[in-house]
Amino acid sequence: MIKQISSAQNPVVKRLLQLQEKSRNRKKEGVFIVEGVREIQLAFKGNYICEELFFCDSLFAAEGLKDLNTNPENHPLITEFSKEVYQKIAYRGSTEGVMALFRSKELSLASLKLDSKNPLILVAEAPEKPGNIGALLRTADAAKVDAVIMANPKTDLFNPNIIRSSVGCIFINNIGVGTTSEIIRLLKQKNISIYAAALQASKIYSEIDFTSSSAIVVGTEATGLSKEWLDNSTQNIIIPMNGEIDSMNVSVAAGILIFEAKRQRGFK
Amino acid sequence: MIKQISSAQNPVVKRLLQLQEKSRNRKKEGVFIVEGVREIQLAFKGNYICEELFFCDSLFAAEGLKDLNTNPENHPLITEFSKEVYQKIAYRGSTEGVMALFRSKELSLASLKLDSKNPLILVAEAPEKPGNIGALLRTADAAKVDAVIMANPKTDLFNPNIIRSSVGCIFINNIGVGTTSEIIRLLKQKNISIYAAALQASKIYSEIDFTSSSAIVVGTEATGLSKEWLDNSTQNIIIPMNGEIDSMNVSVAAGILIFEAKRQRGFK
Repeated sequence: MIKQISSAQNPVVKRLLQLQEKSRNRKKEGVFIVEGVREIQLAFKGNYICEELFFCDSLFAAEGLKDLNTNPENHPLITEFSKEVYQKIAYRGSTEGVMALFRSKELSLASLKLDSKNPLILVAEAPEKPGNIGALLRTADAAKVDAVIMANPKTDLFNPNIIRSSVGCIFINNIGVGTTSEIIRLLKQKNISIYAAALQASKIYSEIDFTSSSAIVVGTEATGLSKEWLDNSTQNIIIPMNGEIDSMNVSVAAGILIFEAKRQRGFK
Repeated sequence: MIKQISSAQNPVVKRLLQLQEKSRNRKKEGVFIVEGVREIQLAFKGNYICEELFFCDSLFAAEGLKDLNTNPENHPLITEFSKEVYQKIAYRGSTEGVMALFRSKELSLASLKLDSKNPLILVAEAPEKPGNIGALLRTADAAKVDAVIMANPKTDLFNPNIIRSSVGCIFINNIGVGTTSEIIRLLKQKNISIYAAALQASKIYSEIDFTSSSAIVVGTEATGLSKEWLDNSTQNIIIPMNGEIDSMNVSVAAGILIFEAKRQRGFK
């Protein structure tokens, strides 16, 4: 039996709207919304627990719901929305007519799986813009890095714009979140070399041997990495720039560094 | 004598609002708005002609206006806005209290300067998202490529979000805009090798010798490059991906390819 909601005044609608807009509500309830077929499939694949699926009959065929759920042990509630209700909640312009409520996971450093022999790790300090975080996560997926670690992120990772700009990658990346000090401690403990992207007085990135255990660390566009990273790195590195503006997009810089490491590792 | 406007009903305010929001108005009038000190300085540096400077006394000190204009032959009108008027027009959240009206340039292929011996060129087909276009332009500046060429861009390049996300780079990049056929003709005529980023059946990008004249061509995230590019390239190239999602942000992919060429060229 599928529940139906056609009034925008329904308290469920109000709750979902607040979950879309407010990270405080997402944190308090421990849930978040995922829109779109691919994104929902990836959340199931990443073993997130789905509490409820919502669809709009005129945009999405109900029989497609069973293809979303790749985890047969998970039996989410199903609710049908009128088009008006659906579009009120949907965050995406070209929406696909299906969204879901998933339970958050704690993305702690302790839960990170780091068992490969020569890990390649991407660390971002204080990332903020959802579009940049999404692009970083897609790069991390494309390069199949062993982990993406966020030091003091400024944005809730279950922000709808991060989910969208990561194309759902966020659910399958091996992500850890911690403070800069905690992350440095972990990397040193595991004998992983720390290469901190600095803005000056550093070695050109392509002169580094990234074939052994390496963490590539990028900071913010405005202020770069904090002193703690620069002081604790194995080597500070730089991407030489010859332009008028010494400034590159942070996710582009991370992509250049990570793929230089991949090139040295034979793209394996 | 500085003109003052304090009413949001003033027709000047309406005109500027429409220039911010509508590419049609920008095209019809042949002007666009630039916000921020650095961006305005770069527009002057790029020899754009400034028609009018606007500032808000409570956010920006009037004596700073003379430092903006690096072109002494250019004498823009100066208008002072009340805070209410300024904030109504400003597109940026953390606005600096100064904006300017500049005359557009035609960014045609014919106006491109291409006189270096072994040019390195970045070509983007059908770029659309302002954030991605801005990131591409910053990468092009950082790498000091000889030219950035846009094939059939989907967005007016004087869009305020492109100006913002390029940090004003757009005014100093050597930019040409044309159709795919026109660009292919130009590149072939100049004996510049065309390396088209494809999604399959291609050579790994790092196996290419980018030290001679090279154009690196990237397409859209959704559909990649058009057949015309793939059929007319010297070699199609690919960035090997090992993840769950075969999809990278277009400006990240362009950064990886351009900086591999830079690495091979010794970052000169």
